[in-house]
Amino acid sequence: LPSSPKEGSIFLLTDFGNSDEFAGVLRAVAVRDAPGANVVDISHEVRPFDVRAGALMLERTVPHLGPGVVVAVVDPGVGTDRRAIAVSVREAKGPRFLVGPDNGVLCFALDLLGGAHTAVVLPEVRWRPEAGATFDGRDVFVPSAARLWSGVPLDDLGPRCDPGRLVRLPEPRVEVASGELKAEVLWIDRFGNVQLAARPSDLDSAGLGSQLQVCLLNSPASPATLLEATRSPSFAVAGALGLMTDSNARLSLVRQEGSAATVLDVREGDVVAIRNRRESS
Amino acid sequence: LPSSPKEGSIFLLTDFGNSDEFAGVLRAVAVRDAPGANVVDISHEVRPFDVRAGALMLERTVPHLGPGVVVAVVDPGVGTDRRAIAVSVREAKGPRFLVGPDNGVLCFALDLLGGAHTAVVLPEVRWRPEAGATFDGRDVFVPSAARLWSGVPLDDLGPRCDPGRLVRLPEPRVEVASGELKAEVLWIDRFGNVQLAARPSDLDSAGLGSQLQVCLLNSPASPATLLEATRSPSFAVAGALGLMTDSNARLSLVRQEGSAATVLDVREGDVVAIRNRRESS
Amino acid sequence: LPSSPKEGSIFLLTDFGNSDEFAGVLRAVAVRDAPGANVVDISHEVRPFDVRAGALMLERTVPHLGPGVVVAVVDPGVGTDRRAIAVSVREAKGPRFLVGPDNGVLCFALDLLGGAHTAVVLPEVRWRPEAGATFDGRDVFVPSAARLWSGVPLDDLGPRCDPGRLVRLPEPRVEVASGELKAEVLWIDRFGNVQLAARPSDLDSAGLGSQLQVCLLNSPASPATLLEATRSPSFAVAGALGLMTDSNARLSLVRQEGSAATVLDVREGDVVAIRNRRESS
Repeated sequence: LPSSPKEGSIFLLTDFGNSDEFAGVLRAVAVRDAPGANVVDISHEVRPFDVRAGALMLERTVPHLGPGVVVAVVDPGVGTDRRAIAVSVREAKGPRFLVGPDNGVLCFALDLLGGAHTAVVLPEVRWRPEAGATFDGRDVFVPSAARLWSGVPLDDLGPRCDPGRLVRLPEPRVEVASGELKAEVLWIDRFGNVQLAARPSDLDSAGLGSQLQVCLLNSPASPATLLEATRSPSFAVAGALGLMTDSNARLSLVRQEGSAATVLDVREGDVVAIRNRRESS
Repeated sequence: LPSSPKEGSIFLLTDFGNSDEFAGVLRAVAVRDAPGANVVDISHEVRPFDVRAGALMLERTVPHLGPGVVVAVVDPGVGTDRRAIAVSVREAKGPRFLVGPDNGVLCFALDLLGGAHTAVVLPEVRWRPEAGATFDGRDVFVPSAARLWSGVPLDDLGPRCDPGRLVRLPEPRVEVASGELKAEVLWIDRFGNVQLAARPSDLDSAGLGSQLQVCLLNSPASPATLLEATRSPSFAVAGALGLMTDSNARLSLVRQEGSAATVLDVREGDVVAIRNRRESS
Repeated sequence: LPSSPKEGSIFLLTDFGNSDEFAGVLRAVAVRDAPGANVVDISHEVRPFDVRAGALMLERTVPHLGPGVVVAVVDPGVGTDRRAIAVSVREAKGPRFLVGPDNGVLCFALDLLGGAHTAVVLPEVRWRPEAGATFDGRDVFVPSAARLWSGVPLDDLGPRCDPGRLVRLPEPRVEVASGELKAEVLWIDRFGNVQLAARPSDLDSAGLGSQLQVCLLNSPASPATLLEATRSPSFAVAGALGLMTDSNARLSLVRQEGSAATVLDVREGDVVAIRNRRESS
């Protein structure tokens, strides 16, 4: 079981936003309970209640984290009987522990870290008896992360639960057929880049070249919009849409200094189909 | 008088936003003038010029802060004759010093920390003679906080002023009558939760149960909107509105994964009346 | 050549926003590669792709930074043949190194720091062979900054290039004539304050007093809007618009607790003309 020698960081990912003090209170509690820890904000701007967006953000981030403890709080079920958990990971590189609600927000990151080694259920804590149980980030998750960072053994935090039965979210959807690649839109970033679940090798498997057309599959009733897209090594795209390998090694639809998401009128969770462009189209 | 042994944090709360470099400059000046200090952002997204919102945010936050110095800058009067102050607090737990304009932004937090022990007036400082006196956060407040963090005595910062005569803001409004509780809306958070000035015990004092109706009192001319609300221990509310004890031990009106503020069409500073629900309503 | 004795900060300025994890990944990589460094966010909310706004923000910020390494990433050309550079500066005070794309984002800050002493071109790096070259902040700039912070010599990072031939942006526009001062709008901040390229001494050179009129010059076809402005030492302005010396020692058009930018209907890059107010106007 990996131990934590008071080094590394406490990483924070939430849907708390930056407009209130929620994230600031997490930072303050982390510094108070784990003096000497670096507190690193991954982001607090996950869309409210969007557990899957948080899980995907954490998946994209975790390969780049050094040692420490991750706290991920996208937690619409706070105060209900959903479990609060702390998990140690199998791989020694990167963060050793992940802490958060057992609602799937940790699942993709855990996969990347070799899976959960040991998991414990964190007991409910309230700031004061007269306060509500609505801010587990402050009262449960960050204090637990601070204890782990300080070297307290995982088993001291709560009773074990089966690490093989933690809540999982649906896998990103990719369908590879001959001449067609269907992929879920996983993420639309600030710049309007549209990240797909598919990877570059899926294009080859589907027999697709560099002159492509993209079709949004969400509205079967309405006539499908077909947009042309060209494979590109960078954001410097000739036409309206480029299809490039992004920094997470997935495919992304992009526009040069513009929003591909606006051109496509697409949302996270939508599915697009990519085919070779026909001469006549 | 408490001293500061170069430990703890410098906490920052402002209405500077994150879109410009204002908050970043505060962080940089803090790190430059107090090497070794943790710099912890509480939030920089207080609504511009809203001193009361800043004071209430600081009140909610300060019970969770470890040792250090708080800098709170919501300061529409910067550059006028409003005073800049640094204050030591009576209680040894939590932050020892608060720094900011004497416009009330510190008042509720000071109350929670046992009141002001000693207060001094900070002299005006400009970055350069040819620059304006419009960024006291950078030129006065954070440098003063860094000196306090570094162990410089409070009296070295400026002449004393009467700690009993610092500017105060109006107290949050709560009226308890038999069968009716009136309370000011103190805060609407990112999720649309509506925090009231009242506390759970006020419900009992007013003789109110768990099936309630809520009435917005702001527009006496127009017909009052009556909404049903149900007491709930968590955000998992059956009906349109829940009334719960929040993480600050105040009452909040909430909706499950939705905005109670939108349903109520309510703003900070409004007053709501809560009564028992009538059978016929 | 200045060296970096593992002290000081790594300062981050980007257009990555706070809604995604981009900035968080930079923070995490900095902490991972330079354990012990303070990581200070200047801002991540530069308008997407706006290199000049980033360069001006860095110019305003750099006089207030302590020792360390600045990373500035506003980089629409990422993945193309634009160069990535690291530069040492001539002045020993403040940051010793600046890292970013060679697109002008560093130019104004370099001027303030005495100019570039030595510059090197950073080689392209990808996170993994199968990932795209679209996140140089993560893969090139912050890792290079961490090496510099850790004491690695600049020449170990890449081949030298001519520090006198780095890309420059157009200088801020100011025209002083007798009775008229024309100045570019450099920056509109969160509060709606309108910073001009001109400085207070330019007003004197143009023979302008304290009762002024301001004219927006952008739309020559439409009739010019004339607004009255009064010189003011603070935001406490009597009339609609004040003209004050701001905290960067430039002139700013302001309104008391309101947005001068909205009153003027002005944007960054616009030019305004300031003249003495006529009696009849």
